[in-house]
Amino acid sequence: MNTPTNEKSQITRDEFPGSKKVYVQGEIHKDVNVAMREITLTDSKPMFVDGEFEITKNPPITVYDTSGPYTDPTVDINVKEGVPALRQKWIMDREDVVQLDEISSEYGRQQLYNSDLDHLRFEHLKKPLIAKEGCNVSQMHYAKKGIITPEMEYVAIRENQKLQEYKALTKQHPGESFGANTPSVITPEFVRDEIAAGRAIIPNNINHPESEPMIIGRNFLVKINANIGNSAITSSIEEEVEKMVWAIRWGADTVMDLSTGKNIHETREWIIRNSPVPIGTVPIYQALEKVKGKAEDLTWELFRDTLIEQAEQGVSYFTIHAGVLLRYIPMTAKRMTGIVSRGGSIMAKWCLSHHKENFLYTHFEDICQIMKKYDVAFSLGDGLRPGSIADANDKAQFAELATLGELTKIAWKHDVQVMIEGPGHVPMQMIKENMDKELRECFEAPFYTLGPLTTDIAPGYDHITSAIGAAQIGWYGTAMLCYVTPKEHLGLPNRDDVKRGVITYKIAAHAADLAKGHPGAQNRDDAMSKARFEFRWEDQFNLSLDPDTAREYHDETLPSDNAKVAHFCSMCGPHFCSMKITQDVRDYAKEHGLDSEDAISEGMKEMADTFNEKGGEVYLEPEKLKN
Amino acid sequence: MNTPTNEKSQITRDEFPGSKKVYVQGEIHKDVNVAMREITLTDSKPMFVDGEFEITKNPPITVYDTSGPYTDPTVDINVKEGVPALRQKWIMDREDVVQLDEISSEYGRQQLYNSDLDHLRFEHLKKPLIAKEGCNVSQMHYAKKGIITPEMEYVAIRENQKLQEYKALTKQHPGESFGANTPSVITPEFVRDEIAAGRAIIPNNINHPESEPMIIGRNFLVKINANIGNSAITSSIEEEVEKMVWAIRWGADTVMDLSTGKNIHETREWIIRNSPVPIGTVPIYQALEKVKGKAEDLTWELFRDTLIEQAEQGVSYFTIHAGVLLRYIPMTAKRMTGIVSRGGSIMAKWCLSHHKENFLYTHFEDICQIMKKYDVAFSLGDGLRPGSIADANDKAQFAELATLGELTKIAWKHDVQVMIEGPGHVPMQMIKENMDKELRECFEAPFYTLGPLTTDIAPGYDHITSAIGAAQIGWYGTAMLCYVTPKEHLGLPNRDDVKRGVITYKIAAHAADLAKGHPGAQNRDDAMSKARFEFRWEDQFNLSLDPDTAREYHDETLPSDNAKVAHFCSMCGPHFCSMKITQDVRDYAKEHGLDSEDAISEGMKEMADTFNEKGGEVYLEPEKLKN
Repeated sequence: MNTPTNEKSQITRDEFPGSKKVYVQGEIHKDVNVAMREITLTDSKPMFVDGEFEITKNPPITVYDTSGPYTDPTVDINVKEGVPALRQKWIMDREDVVQLDEISSEYGRQQLYNSDLDHLRFEHLKKPLIAKEGCNVSQMHYAKKGIITPEMEYVAIRENQKLQEYKALTKQHPGESFGANTPSVITPEFVRDEIAAGRAIIPNNINHPESEPMIIGRNFLVKINANIGNSAITSSIEEEVEKMVWAIRWGADTVMDLSTGKNIHETREWIIRNSPVPIGTVPIYQALEKVKGKAEDLTWELFRDTLIEQAEQGVSYFTIHAGVLLRYIPMTAKRMTGIVSRGGSIMAKWCLSHHKENFLYTHFEDICQIMKKYDVAFSLGDGLRPGSIADANDKAQFAELATLGELTKIAWKHDVQVMIEGPGHVPMQMIKENMDKELRECFEAPFYTLGPLTTDIAPGYDHITSAIGAAQIGWYGTAMLCYVTPKEHLGLPNRDDVKRGVITYKIAAHAADLAKGHPGAQNRDDAMSKARFEFRWEDQFNLSLDPDTAREYHDETLPSDNAKVAHFCSMCGPHFCSMKITQDVRDYAKEHGLDSEDAISEGMKEMADTFNEKGGEVYLEPEKLKN
Repeated sequence: MNTPTNEKSQITRDEFPGSKKVYVQGEIHKDVNVAMREITLTDSKPMFVDGEFEITKNPPITVYDTSGPYTDPTVDINVKEGVPALRQKWIMDREDVVQLDEISSEYGRQQLYNSDLDHLRFEHLKKPLIAKEGCNVSQMHYAKKGIITPEMEYVAIRENQKLQEYKALTKQHPGESFGANTPSVITPEFVRDEIAAGRAIIPNNINHPESEPMIIGRNFLVKINANIGNSAITSSIEEEVEKMVWAIRWGADTVMDLSTGKNIHETREWIIRNSPVPIGTVPIYQALEKVKGKAEDLTWELFRDTLIEQAEQGVSYFTIHAGVLLRYIPMTAKRMTGIVSRGGSIMAKWCLSHHKENFLYTHFEDICQIMKKYDVAFSLGDGLRPGSIADANDKAQFAELATLGELTKIAWKHDVQVMIEGPGHVPMQMIKENMDKELRECFEAPFYTLGPLTTDIAPGYDHITSAIGAAQIGWYGTAMLCYVTPKEHLGLPNRDDVKRGVITYKIAAHAADLAKGHPGAQNRDDAMSKARFEFRWEDQFNLSLDPDTAREYHDETLPSDNAKVAHFCSMCGPHFCSMKITQDVRDYAKEHGLDSEDAISEGMKEMADTFNEKGGEVYLEPEKLKN
């Protein structure tokens, strides 16, 4: 493994074509500046209307932007220093944290003082923050107290695709909410209310001030997570940072660092310091590394130290497999594919080895005590999720889900934010039951699912088998979708796989947003369709989820620049274009006074009269047809 | 354009790995031999059970096979001669057809006698068949008369994934049906009944005896169609044949030839003579070529000649845009994307130019007269389908759908088989309405949809945006899904795009089959999952929809042959495998007598007793948690 040398060449910093970064200021908190991407559109081509040439201006489209400062050319980024800590002041202003003199984790200190690791260590390590004695720094805690934090206003602005409406409304009614269902404009008060009720979370560790606040809840835009991490084979630290940058470029809302190889601690520091999105982990993975892969050697003390180690680095949510209870494990013995969750199988092995209850369950309140001191959210893991169509929705899976519900209540007692992990492999007709059960048994805590994959027979295409299920469960109410890459079940995703996985999940999430009727979600579709109909090719590329691929595919068939302003495309050629014909239809209809339904009905009537006078029988009459 | 020279090198004839072609003989018709692919599986690895090594044999899996004789190495294929005419005898045996002395189409004869085209012409042209005067050769006609044709038995066998059950049942009860819903075994009588009721069709032109019968209906496996065709740019004839072979290799159940360039007639002949799947067309495309692209110059006479020309070549279904009525056209004027169907916009232009009703509608009974003489099925085109999310489910679309229902009744009066085309671009929450309306207004005629695409914002990924909608509408009851390639909206699909489109749609169709509970559909998923759990990598590749890609992806990370027999995979490495841990869990549970639920419950109880004696409070009790 090498230290970063020439970072600028390794980290992707290209702007999106036809786009610029804009910042929208808050109304309640003036130091809230929400980053968005604005896509500039060209004018419609002149149309000859009523004897004159008319030009339509197309207003720019603002889209949700997860790429952080990496796509803002005015921000200077050095991975050795990390990205700007935009939340630092908000955190300090609340006056409920203290800075520690040194990190609390024993393991963390060992790493810190190990000079062999000096070359790998992030240079600008800061001392960690922790809640003051007796304080709770979770967003849920503030929300329950009625406080609208800057983070809440940030996400409120970020969720709105109709910014002008938002601005006007928030100015008039700063503290107004609009009920439990998605309102036409999302206000900060609505955000606060959803978080207080546990229906949404803002993963927001006080030790990750670099993160741009984002919200996970079913009355908001559906989010997606991308997993990264070095495995047995070791990639370099700067490669890991670039993996994160690459994933958020294409739309990952959070990134889970699932590293299982060497130097997990150091890699994670680099990732967090450079990440504008919340980072999630599965702490049991690292704990297992510490006991050299022997699950039975795990202890609560070692695990606890790992939680604190990661919390002080700035991890914003932990997957905790506390629902894998000893008595549920035999329910999996006759499954087609047993236990496929890594965390689940580790805990199962521990439980059986010791014939004891899962220590994550028995120490759950202790874990809550840690979480609330840093505002780490729970992602309650589904260790018994099905790994095949055959095992979907079985007794083991649903027994665990009920336990996750019990744990949710405990976490909420501590004002710790919670989301619930879900499957997995589930055929389409069984997906809704998952969502319904989750809402009921976990009291509407946000659901966070892996796919689900709707068939097992397409390795190499599991981004697609799972996007089908993901779109569906997103529509039903899942708040965040964990992506699946084409390499699932086969190997480690490379750069292209990560991009394909992220874009595919962006599609699933957006399809769900449309289906849920999220306010303004259809703006981008409409802008795209208008550009398509008007043959504004450059706008079509720029409005795409993946402008590079759209352009490349177009140019494969018609590479010349002329083709991009041509009033036809390669699918049909110049003579045979349905869109061109439609325009002709419109023009013709207008010329002949047939541009309204009334006019054409009139015309039809006249024609029918003439026809009937001649005793014609050409028209098939519906009534006759029924015979 | 060149004539084929070295066909063997151009046409893909590779067998699938680990697979062989098998033929299953009929019970009613002994000359029915249904081609299937049998995938051989390896044994499970020896397991140490009760002090002995046990080996489990895994039986071979039979899968539906659309690839025709191309994957049977015992069949010699020369594209100049076409593939074997397996239905010829069945057609002649019915004694209801005559052979014509020459083709009936005037245009067809012109082409035939044009010596400039000699080098392009298929060498072994046969004289076309036509129904005897007063006869009707449609499968619907036979079905209504209670006849189980060889074609019907062929599809009955083909649809069954549980062949032994089928054999036994059909032997005992040859003429028994099992009601309107999918039975656990599909019998020939069930097939006949579905066709007679109009709920399913077998596209089956008597002039395409080379086609292997297949059925399209919602109580059967969901089918997929792939489009091919030369466009403005001209590809060679043998390339067109290979496109078809390539599409059916990956699973296309029918192929539509949408050529719009030169030599359409000759290209089509080559495709049909070499195709083991039914070929569909949109005859108005060729008619438009004949009038040099001027829609207003189209006439019924010219169109009629085109229908006959194509029917006598062997096209099995025609897309006919007879529902684009003059009075519906202005309903599209205010749409975001107007009329996007090519056929629809051609007819719209014709209607407005002449201010007359669509001649496809006014001559619909004349068209039926042609269809029934060759058994060409209608695919009633949705010329007013939405081209954007904004236009989904609008008045124009549904007005046309109602008209298609009227036309269905007329076609059925003539015993002509019918399916109904559907959209297009539809957000998820509006998809079901399409299916429900279609079933109601078109009297359960099979629905054949293009996607639908569930968002407009991802050009380059529209195979995925549409697979999400396709899986859903397939589950709701759509019988055939028209594929969409990654190049949709951008350019012409190349070989890779066609494959990606087909595989993606195979996934959508199979996900729908699982959701519908098609008998035996899950067999392949189960075999795959068992192979996955047991680390039988070769079996996993061979069971995949795309074995080549699965193997390639695996080998990218772990190329050695050893890795394919290793009890771990690249995702987690040798130390960290959840599947391995699961096996350990099973072994451990067995050793400790914890392999049944009773045993472990007993164990838990003992433990709890001990624990309670000590006054412990570690276990969180659900009742307490509710507080």
